[in-house]
Amino acid sequence: MSASSATTILGRFVAEWAWEATPAPVRHEAKRSLLNALGCALGVANDPAISAAIRVLTPFSGPRHVTVLGRAERLDVMGAAFVNTIAANLLDYDDTHPPTVIHPTAPVAPPTLALAEQQGLPGQAVLHALLLGAEVECRIGLAVSSGHYARGWHITSTCGVFGAAAAASRLLGLSTERTAAALGIAASLSSGLVENLATSAKNVGMGNAARNGLLAALLAEAGYEAAQAAIEGKLGWARAMGDAPDMDAMTGELGSRWEFATNSYKPYPSGIVFHAVIEACLALRDELGSDPAAIVSVSVRGNQLLLDRGDRPTLTARDARVSIAHNAAVGLVRGTAGVADFAEIDDPVVARVRTIVSAALAPDFPPGAAEVTVRLTDGRAATRRVDVAHGGPGRPLSDHELEQKFRHNAPGAAADRRIEALWALDTAKDVRPFMALMAG
Amino acid sequence: MSASSATTILGRFVAEWAWEATPAPVRHEAKRSLLNALGCALGVANDPAISAAIRVLTPFSGPRHVTVLGRAERLDVMGAAFVNTIAANLLDYDDTHPPTVIHPTAPVAPPTLALAEQQGLPGQAVLHALLLGAEVECRIGLAVSSGHYARGWHITSTCGVFGAAAAASRLLGLSTERTAAALGIAASLSSGLVENLATSAKNVGMGNAARNGLLAALLAEAGYEAAQAAIEGKLGWARAMGDAPDMDAMTGELGSRWEFATNSYKPYPSGIVFHAVIEACLALRDELGSDPAAIVSVSVRGNQLLLDRGDRPTLTARDARVSIAHNAAVGLVRGTAGVADFAEIDDPVVARVRTIVSAALAPDFPPGAAEVTVRLTDGRAATRRVDVAHGGPGRPLSDHELEQKFRHNAPGAAADRRIEALWALDTAKDVRPFMALMAG
Repeated sequence: MSASSATTILGRFVAEWAWEATPAPVRHEAKRSLLNALGCALGVANDPAISAAIRVLTPFSGPRHVTVLGRAERLDVMGAAFVNTIAANLLDYDDTHPPTVIHPTAPVAPPTLALAEQQGLPGQAVLHALLLGAEVECRIGLAVSSGHYARGWHITSTCGVFGAAAAASRLLGLSTERTAAALGIAASLSSGLVENLATSAKNVGMGNAARNGLLAALLAEAGYEAAQAAIEGKLGWARAMGDAPDMDAMTGELGSRWEFATNSYKPYPSGIVFHAVIEACLALRDELGSDPAAIVSVSVRGNQLLLDRGDRPTLTARDARVSIAHNAAVGLVRGTAGVADFAEIDDPVVARVRTIVSAALAPDFPPGAAEVTVRLTDGRAATRRVDVAHGGPGRPLSDHELEQKFRHNAPGAAADRRIEALWALDTAKDVRPFMALMAG
Repeated sequence: MSASSATTILGRFVAEWAWEATPAPVRHEAKRSLLNALGCALGVANDPAISAAIRVLTPFSGPRHVTVLGRAERLDVMGAAFVNTIAANLLDYDDTHPPTVIHPTAPVAPPTLALAEQQGLPGQAVLHALLLGAEVECRIGLAVSSGHYARGWHITSTCGVFGAAAAASRLLGLSTERTAAALGIAASLSSGLVENLATSAKNVGMGNAARNGLLAALLAEAGYEAAQAAIEGKLGWARAMGDAPDMDAMTGELGSRWEFATNSYKPYPSGIVFHAVIEACLALRDELGSDPAAIVSVSVRGNQLLLDRGDRPTLTARDARVSIAHNAAVGLVRGTAGVADFAEIDDPVVARVRTIVSAALAPDFPPGAAEVTVRLTDGRAATRRVDVAHGGPGRPLSDHELEQKFRHNAPGAAADRRIEALWALDTAKDVRPFMALMAG
């Protein structure tokens, strides 16, 4: 029985699975996800939430040897993992595991990089630990999705702690038994609430997932124990959080089915369900012309998820990224949908168009699909439907597009060197020069 | 609506309630609970779990200015709060809030003392923050009990983070609004599983509750926000964890009904439901004589809770404290039931008596009641029933008994000075000399 507990099965996979046995596309996905996450973090390095977190954590940092992405300050491994995870996920512009809506990389890559930087480990060890950690994180999430999120659990935080614990365990060279203990300890540290998603408490939950995963691995290394059935037991993680887990989803086909291989990347920094709205609007702008004053009405149709997430009467900078009206308006008015387009919510032309956007239910639409109809003052009208937005299933961003996104997030003279170093990370004998490139 | 959210109501209470307005018995309970918690922590200061936690956290500590109870090492506020909370609760010998089975003081007093020591605050501020934090913790627990625990949540950890956040907020002098934010952030950091209770993962959950509560308060002070309905909202803490909260239990009669006033203290370091078994056995030993070789059988009767928690065939040092057989055997054989009696499980005389203890259901017995019948080789037999054990409702430990317990946990020349300083803590202008007394 103990040999078949989830922590033991996943612990063995993390402790024993070889880099060389991993399919090349999965190994490459580790680089793609890291490029994407680092760009997202560098892009918000000077956000007040990041500065405040650094200020709060600095007095509680051991020797400050680890890079804070895009900043001159340094922190210890715990502090850097906390702050860098917040940064990578701050705008929800990071990656998405479609079946669970987990953002896999943000809670896993920062603690992995921080620990590797402190210990001067090779780049391949980072990529390997990242992909194993993200795989464990996505599989545990898959085993409790979608009831877990619907009940109020912010699944990226609640599962991120497992990913961080797994990745740190691998970097520390822990045995199957010690890795299982780390995962079991992580179960007792898992948290994060959907109710708090519109506030900065969400960021704290994310940072803590990274930090707690590290802590779980370090305590397991020091001999701390956990229950064999910490995840799937009668009074364990999954049932406490609401559901019996699907054990096949969690532990089946390890090494042959790769959840991490389905990882996707956003071309726009808004909620992924709004991307079809943006693309329809960009196409309609091309078709009907770019004069926003000529727009009389904008009618958006989508399924219940779209309306639940995005049909909101008022707007703050924080929820522009999950507003149907704002997503439609930036596409139609500005013809772009980048970070600045979602930050500058007071643009009067965008604000006017927002007021003429309406949303209606199309119950037969698949998740992520949207149809937009625009009517103009001269009587013209056009409709566009997008079923799968760019970045979604079957329409992945290319490596080149990920580079462009990185340059857009983190422009400047260092971009070329950073991108080049990222693609060569698996050959770096020591991750420290790479991390030095990522400082501010 | 926002003015009546749980975080705002509790935040106002914590920010505004005056020490002078607090009934004298409640203020005194803060001292009693602190005496009890400090004794428990000092008694296990050299336990391997404590040493390992110090070893793991030291590299991640800022300047080490804060006392680790009973140790020569020092850590920063976060690290000391983590380790001291683990120590206070390590043997579950700390206090109990009967309606919720929360151990209120362990996750609240250590972060409060640590922050006060760092800042050189007066003793009265510590006692005040402790009682407000513990009150908030117990009320949030009461609002979700007993379904919360039954679902798998270790309620002392899950609610302890709120108590720590509240106490730290008060010490930091946060406003109602900032304290509410701290409580809302704490909701996203709340965790701890019943499945892990028999392992040291439980200790990590406890230490993290203290650390995360501090972190929530410090981030709230720095401007981090949380949802108004983080605790009671549709996708908030209580419902994510399984139940709609009883808002009257949580926020009714603040300042007139004091949950903290019902706090109770254990005379024995075992699970509280076993205390009636011990007392019955101590009385039977007085009545029948102290020769364990004469004992033929020991029959214990109690309600379902007693059997569920304590009827276990095998025994480790970790679960001796929740074994009916071991609790009965130490009472009958050793005539004492202290920390050593539960650590020395290999005592052959105790081990023999354990094998002749049987347990049967008495469905009509109230929770906490037990009846024990002992039969001897010479044909004599006697039965004792205890409905409310010492330390339970209506039978509180006296101040003198708490002093004796403290001396038993933390013997030595310093005991008198420590006890004297504790009773005078409300008059101490600076808590630092008091904490210096508590070091090793």
